[in-house]
Amino acid sequence: MIWEFQTEYLVLVVAVVPTVAAACITTVAESGFSNWGNTQARTKNITRINMSQTGGTNGPEPAIPRNGPEPAVAKRITLRNRMHPTIRSKFRMEVTYRYITMKHHIEGAPVESDFELKSASHVLLVNDESNDVLVKNLYISIDPYQLNRMKKYSSSQKGNSFSVGVAPGQAIDAYGIGRVVASANKGFAKDDIVVGVIGWEDYSLSKGGNMLRKLETSEFPLSYQAGILGLSGLTAYAGFYDICKPKKGDKVFVSTASGSVGNLVGQYAKLFGCYVVGCAGTKQKVDMLKEKLGFDDAFNYKEGSDMRSTLKRYFPEGIDIYFDNVGGEMLEAAVANMNPFGRVAVCGVISEYTDSRKRAGPDMLDVIYKRIKIQGFLAADHYHLYGDFISTTSDYIRSGKIHILEDISHGIESVTSAFQGLFRGDNVGKKLVQITEE
Amino acid sequence: MIWEFQTEYLVLVVAVVPTVAAACITTVAESGFSNWGNTQARTKNITRINMSQTGGTNGPEPAIPRNGPEPAVAKRITLRNRMHPTIRSKFRMEVTYRYITMKHHIEGAPVESDFELKSASHVLLVNDESNDVLVKNLYISIDPYQLNRMKKYSSSQKGNSFSVGVAPGQAIDAYGIGRVVASANKGFAKDDIVVGVIGWEDYSLSKGGNMLRKLETSEFPLSYQAGILGLSGLTAYAGFYDICKPKKGDKVFVSTASGSVGNLVGQYAKLFGCYVVGCAGTKQKVDMLKEKLGFDDAFNYKEGSDMRSTLKRYFPEGIDIYFDNVGGEMLEAAVANMNPFGRVAVCGVISEYTDSRKRAGPDMLDVIYKRIKIQGFLAADHYHLYGDFISTTSDYIRSGKIHILEDISHGIESVTSAFQGLFRGDNVGKKLVQITEE
Repeated sequence: MIWEFQTEYLVLVVAVVPTVAAACITTVAESGFSNWGNTQARTKNITRINMSQTGGTNGPEPAIPRNGPEPAVAKRITLRNRMHPTIRSKFRMEVTYRYITMKHHIEGAPVESDFELKSASHVLLVNDESNDVLVKNLYISIDPYQLNRMKKYSSSQKGNSFSVGVAPGQAIDAYGIGRVVASANKGFAKDDIVVGVIGWEDYSLSKGGNMLRKLETSEFPLSYQAGILGLSGLTAYAGFYDICKPKKGDKVFVSTASGSVGNLVGQYAKLFGCYVVGCAGTKQKVDMLKEKLGFDDAFNYKEGSDMRSTLKRYFPEGIDIYFDNVGGEMLEAAVANMNPFGRVAVCGVISEYTDSRKRAGPDMLDVIYKRIKIQGFLAADHYHLYGDFISTTSDYIRSGKIHILEDISHGIESVTSAFQGLFRGDNVGKKLVQITEE
Repeated sequence: MIWEFQTEYLVLVVAVVPTVAAACITTVAESGFSNWGNTQARTKNITRINMSQTGGTNGPEPAIPRNGPEPAVAKRITLRNRMHPTIRSKFRMEVTYRYITMKHHIEGAPVESDFELKSASHVLLVNDESNDVLVKNLYISIDPYQLNRMKKYSSSQKGNSFSVGVAPGQAIDAYGIGRVVASANKGFAKDDIVVGVIGWEDYSLSKGGNMLRKLETSEFPLSYQAGILGLSGLTAYAGFYDICKPKKGDKVFVSTASGSVGNLVGQYAKLFGCYVVGCAGTKQKVDMLKEKLGFDDAFNYKEGSDMRSTLKRYFPEGIDIYFDNVGGEMLEAAVANMNPFGRVAVCGVISEYTDSRKRAGPDMLDVIYKRIKIQGFLAADHYHLYGDFISTTSDYIRSGKIHILEDISHGIESVTSAFQGLFRGDNVGKKLVQITEE
């Protein structure tokens, strides 16, 4: 049996934020041990308590179990924080952090009063066996699919571990970039920059660290890692190349073409040698698609009521590839205008996120007789393309062949308004919130 | 310049049918020539007249242009039938035949009064340059998709040359089996048995003969060539293997499982090692699927109103493959019950053929998060599988591993009621009309 004692006490206050709670890190060497149960059993016990407090009626366990955001639970952890003598532990780190949570399930478009900013504490026992990593969040990716996690029910919630439902009061996982503050994981060291699943919070405790990737390069601005070189980029790249299987000269239609994924799909398609038309919701965006991003054409989908004839006008020779980010009427119209052997990559259904009655009913006779393939996909299944994606996209960035569209808000307080803006079409390109300056 | 004269006159009456008109073949050696225009130009001219008489507002030229079914035109051909001296022609054959046509476009379920039986003449100039083949029809395949050709508009009409619209008064192309009566095509000789595009008529003139295939074997009953060894079989085989890409143990759902294609898909899937559940519209059919065809389970879709929970009950572990013959609510329910990476082969949409309001709106969130592929297909694109298909299926037939379900009516007069029966679910297995005994 190994007994290790340390007597150093280290207390660091790294940030003081007056709004809701001070984010603070406390690093305390373990100095007392008791003998009531082993640490694993205790952690399990506490996790169970958290789950029962936060799972609600929604049921599914979050993809990345986290120490409970509820201050009451954090307090409990602090009170019971006495290491079992079998655990080799040099010090304990505690950080009080702010996180955004929902007050209740959200069924329509999100509004400010759906959310609240709360505070809680993460506790990391450095050098224990958890492999956990404590991360200070720098950039958070703001994505429409999160709205489906916030509903009482959405079919997406059972589809994938990334998309499980979020219960009111619970923390909200999100893709982003952070800097390691402390690590119980050999793969990560203090000050490593990491990309992966963090959350709508200023500090995240990555359980086991297995949803994080250490960033090895600093060639590009850090924010790119949450956009063009992150999941949005891989989604665009995999969706276009792996799902749509383009041929040079193909006629490509992209909806929400000024969005985080759409603008990249359009640019990849142009660089590949396709004819590309995009749609967006304002004249300014339409102009940008044509003038800045080099789309062959673009239109404002809010003008003109008959989407079928609009698409007919923009694609007199028919559509070969439709990269669908919206679903609903647009999907119907695109299928109606498709050429034989057309391909639809179904990436998003934003028109239905705030109103499920807008469900699409594409003409299945078109699907049969034009041998159309409609395929849903998630970037996570296409990591075999990751090397190609990074290499190709980095080259495009270096040579200035691809434009980076970023739309960055600042501070955790802006997360909720940034999120609401997605459903009003406020964003141009990748919507990010920079939680803090480096 | 070659001049050939023959003096033999041969008149054969091959069938006398009292209902509408006698089907008769007249073989007359050419004995007189005039010098007004060359034959090709004349044929073109007559073809144009036919088209303008029969094309109606529907416009598209039929896939296989045929000499006009209108008696007036046939008469005109007969009157002007004077060969140009440059054509090497031994004899001229004329057959008066009966054909079924629509009185008007059909928008709902077809009824008897939508159709009429008429008569006309086919003329074949044997040894001219037409390559035409005159066929006595033996079996006609009765297929639901034909209803979409009969509508004033269906998106399927522009999708494929097989599915072009039919105008009122016009003959109706159909897949079937026949015996060559006379041929101007070196690939076909008198008495050859041929399979391919003929029509709802007792004789067909195959323009150029390029939609026919000579049958080289007589191992199996002839009718199999229009069903299990014909397009229905290839559709089932290609749809299951090429579109659904099955794995052993996959859970397969087949709708209209007692239909011409569905019953074969289910049997192929069972033989491949899948778990198969089918649905049909009567208890008798359901029993047959389970007891005769070896489906793991089957149910009557007319019982129980909530298709989602019905499928949930039959597939507690989810559906991996859905072979869709019906569309509408069934497609929605199947997608809702699919497993990740599920595949939907869209073969038919029979629920929408008689009521387009029944269009399906599958949940696209399911499509995305479960990475579902929904793919329309036509057997005609899968001829690269033809050898495998025939060889595998023939082996299954020889060894008794596959059951052949045929539902045969007799006589051209039964074609319309057989067709109407498809939409009432009257048929069990492949619906055929045997036009005449061999």
